[in-house]
Amino acid sequence: MDVELRLRRPGIDAAGEAIVYLDRASPACRTLGLAAPDRLLVTHGGKAITARLNLVPGTLIGPDEAGLSEAAWNAIMATEGGPVTIRKDETIDSMSHVRAKVFGHRLDAAPMEAILSDIVDGRYSDIQLAAFVTACAARPLGTDEIAAMTGAMVDTGARMTWPPGVIADKHCVGGLPGNRTTPIVVAIAAACGLMIPKTSSRAITSPAGTADMMETLAPVNLTLDHMRRVVESEGGCIVWGGAVDLSPADDILIRIERALGVDSHGQLIASVLSKKIAAGATHLVIDLPVGPSAKIRSAGDAETLSRTLLDVARRFGVHVRVLKTNGAHPVGRGIGPALEARDVLQVLRNEAEAPDDLRAKAVTLAGALLELAGMAAEGGGEGLAERTLASGRAWKKFQAICAAQGGMAEPPSARHRQTVHAQTSGRVNAFDNRLLSRAAILAGAPEEKAAGLDLHVRAGDMVEEGQPLLTLHSQSVGELAQALAFVQKNHEAIITLRS
Amino acid sequence: MDVELRLRRPGIDAAGEAIVYLDRASPACRTLGLAAPDRLLVTHGGKAITARLNLVPGTLIGPDEAGLSEAAWNAIMATEGGPVTIRKDETIDSMSHVRAKVFGHRLDAAPMEAILSDIVDGRYSDIQLAAFVTACAARPLGTDEIAAMTGAMVDTGARMTWPPGVIADKHCVGGLPGNRTTPIVVAIAAACGLMIPKTSSRAITSPAGTADMMETLAPVNLTLDHMRRVVESEGGCIVWGGAVDLSPADDILIRIERALGVDSHGQLIASVLSKKIAAGATHLVIDLPVGPSAKIRSAGDAETLSRTLLDVARRFGVHVRVLKTNGAHPVGRGIGPALEARDVLQVLRNEAEAPDDLRAKAVTLAGALLELAGMAAEGGGEGLAERTLASGRAWKKFQAICAAQGGMAEPPSARHRQTVHAQTSGRVNAFDNRLLSRAAILAGAPEEKAAGLDLHVRAGDMVEEGQPLLTLHSQSVGELAQALAFVQKNHEAIITLRS
Repeated sequence: MDVELRLRRPGIDAAGEAIVYLDRASPACRTLGLAAPDRLLVTHGGKAITARLNLVPGTLIGPDEAGLSEAAWNAIMATEGGPVTIRKDETIDSMSHVRAKVFGHRLDAAPMEAILSDIVDGRYSDIQLAAFVTACAARPLGTDEIAAMTGAMVDTGARMTWPPGVIADKHCVGGLPGNRTTPIVVAIAAACGLMIPKTSSRAITSPAGTADMMETLAPVNLTLDHMRRVVESEGGCIVWGGAVDLSPADDILIRIERALGVDSHGQLIASVLSKKIAAGATHLVIDLPVGPSAKIRSAGDAETLSRTLLDVARRFGVHVRVLKTNGAHPVGRGIGPALEARDVLQVLRNEAEAPDDLRAKAVTLAGALLELAGMAAEGGGEGLAERTLASGRAWKKFQAICAAQGGMAEPPSARHRQTVHAQTSGRVNAFDNRLLSRAAILAGAPEEKAAGLDLHVRAGDMVEEGQPLLTLHSQSVGELAQALAFVQKNHEAIITLRS
Repeated sequence: MDVELRLRRPGIDAAGEAIVYLDRASPACRTLGLAAPDRLLVTHGGKAITARLNLVPGTLIGPDEAGLSEAAWNAIMATEGGPVTIRKDETIDSMSHVRAKVFGHRLDAAPMEAILSDIVDGRYSDIQLAAFVTACAARPLGTDEIAAMTGAMVDTGARMTWPPGVIADKHCVGGLPGNRTTPIVVAIAAACGLMIPKTSSRAITSPAGTADMMETLAPVNLTLDHMRRVVESEGGCIVWGGAVDLSPADDILIRIERALGVDSHGQLIASVLSKKIAAGATHLVIDLPVGPSAKIRSAGDAETLSRTLLDVARRFGVHVRVLKTNGAHPVGRGIGPALEARDVLQVLRNEAEAPDDLRAKAVTLAGALLELAGMAAEGGGEGLAERTLASGRAWKKFQAICAAQGGMAEPPSARHRQTVHAQTSGRVNAFDNRLLSRAAILAGAPEEKAAGLDLHVRAGDMVEEGQPLLTLHSQSVGELAQALAFVQKNHEAIITLRS
């Protein structure tokens, strides 16, 4: 039973969810026999999306109109006053597979494909998405299931093809604040002649993803065509994966994982590999920080994750090297998009104040990638990477990449700052990465690019009472106050001094 | 950082979710540094709720206004133009317990209490609620956890107290269309002098709950005070459990379970027992229909559920008798609130056309309850129940209860009907309860009280080609068409004839 209405854009940002607003007293509602929370199939000019129904008074949306939330509006490329067809969405068959998973059944390739295809088509509500994400964490995915999910994520999105040969890539499993090696690795690798079409994600539960950080330096929402032109001309790029429609299911699931703070091994592997496979990668270096407050907390966990990841990658013909790195401390000084970008620029420009640890780690990863890709002999990768960085060739390449992506910018500065000082003297013994991240998030990161915090001390430093430990950066006094209250409350856990 | 605004009611029914609408360009948003999907604590006159933020243009909601969805509006008893205080909600600490459950940890009483308390306070988003429901199904709750959940559900709601002595109750685990014995059992029990303050739920995934059905005969949204007066004067009542605030957490979770079609043993037991314990029940009969297409499909499942349920009930000092009943066929003729109410009235009025199976089952359950409660000797309950029904005393009691609840009404009739006829001849061999329920839901039940279907044949009946099998009832032609298409497509599975 189809109903024809006119599109209307009330301009409501429903936190990323697709909502259709209908006049509860309209003939359309009566004809369809609608009552919230029905789900409706909304079709406009060949594009369709499933949206959740919200009933509103006729004063908000006219009886012959269908109002769409911003997410729904953009998904079907709606036009004000344009024609739209609405009908009740039928039962989502693939939800029976989600229920089967909840109750312990394994998901084969076909059910996984059905689920992810419905997810990409926008048919799952937030409640249903959350059930799928939770089920995959509570009933951990086996290797076959992870491979099935990876394949389904690749198949339900766009796929890049490149000339035959090595396509390099790198990835960090995250959880380590400030660990922003990607732009440096890409610049070094591309400067050495590797083809490295890097797509990055935005933050899931952290104060900054590489895409968030990179966005303070250059546009990252590139189309697939634009991304291809950048890579063809410069050998590398650093763009947001979500904008080029590679593994779009992953981006939808990430929004839910972020709201839940749940990020399971299986989905993590499928997320990483699907993006890389869709981007056409053949050789991939993975940075796996391990530490008591990193995402991966123990060597055992790292080993399990690494083994499964290599197993799944092999099935897709991707060569992977996993580097387990020190995840006990933050890397660099800044935490938050713009503050991390400043660290990256200091390294690339070979500035004296550049953070040593960030520089050393980027050189190690770039070296491993150069070796894996056959650009350097075993043991010779780091030296080549170091020379490429020190000579300024990496910096030149980075500027060229930024220019090709749409023009380079300087990262923004925050309006409000507050420095926190040591209350006692002692040696810096430990950082709690999670609490540091939380403080940066309370300060406004990653939504506010300039927000976050700057560390003034490193592990092992001697600190005198009253010496600055960290500075909070915020765009609003409310957020600054919240972050400060949090830091003051958790003072000793965030940066532990030992006398 | 608090912001003071004025309340505004745009009248949006956001499918049961609490939403706050703020002007995205307003000083309030800038001060708080807000961006969707932040969660806000909304306080008005001593009542508070956590609501999800939707950003809207200033044309919808003024810069000094906070618009609330209907669910949020009702939760804080808002008044148009009234003062409201808004601030960012802090991290929900209890979500760490939900994550622990997702990853396999058991939930003790304290974490369970923390989770359910936050849920009742409206602090969980739909995404977070779905994660909790899914985790409790995917990591099945142990007996201790079910007891903890039951206790927490009781503690986070209102609790009824009665004079010392027997407080009787009955419950059906559901999954069997048309199985509407409750009003009959309550009428018989109350007529025999038992005190039976019955609260019922609305449909979770079925075309009608007892509360939905009862609402076609009398008001069921009673306050706790009103319910008490009904029970004190008539000995029994049949009201919606959600309206009297007994185990309010359960009602919140049921909305999510319904959207997911997930209903796990643990939550089922906690749901049933928390409502009964909060209502003050001491003696409880449970109807557990078992059949290939009922909610409980096998004798083994029924046994597990029954054992756990008795174990948990014992911890709370509640005497329970579980009756495993035949769940292979629907009970009565009607499926849907009003059609089931008609069946109930026929039985209570001792009408000739009253469905025998509904009458017999109600008498069995009432008999078991009379025995459990000590009103009849073992083996003498059914006889007492039968006499009470046949004499008209149960009917008189039912009318008195309806009058006390606010006045008795006749159930409504649907605007549109369509009869489906047998395409071949044969004997009625089997019904598929799930497909029958689905057809009734497609026809509009339970949102439309008059919608559903009427069965014209029973198991074992000989049917001639062209003879009526069932009649669909709908309030809209769209729903009637959808239900008809579904029945025609699944004709042979819904009612299987054997030649």
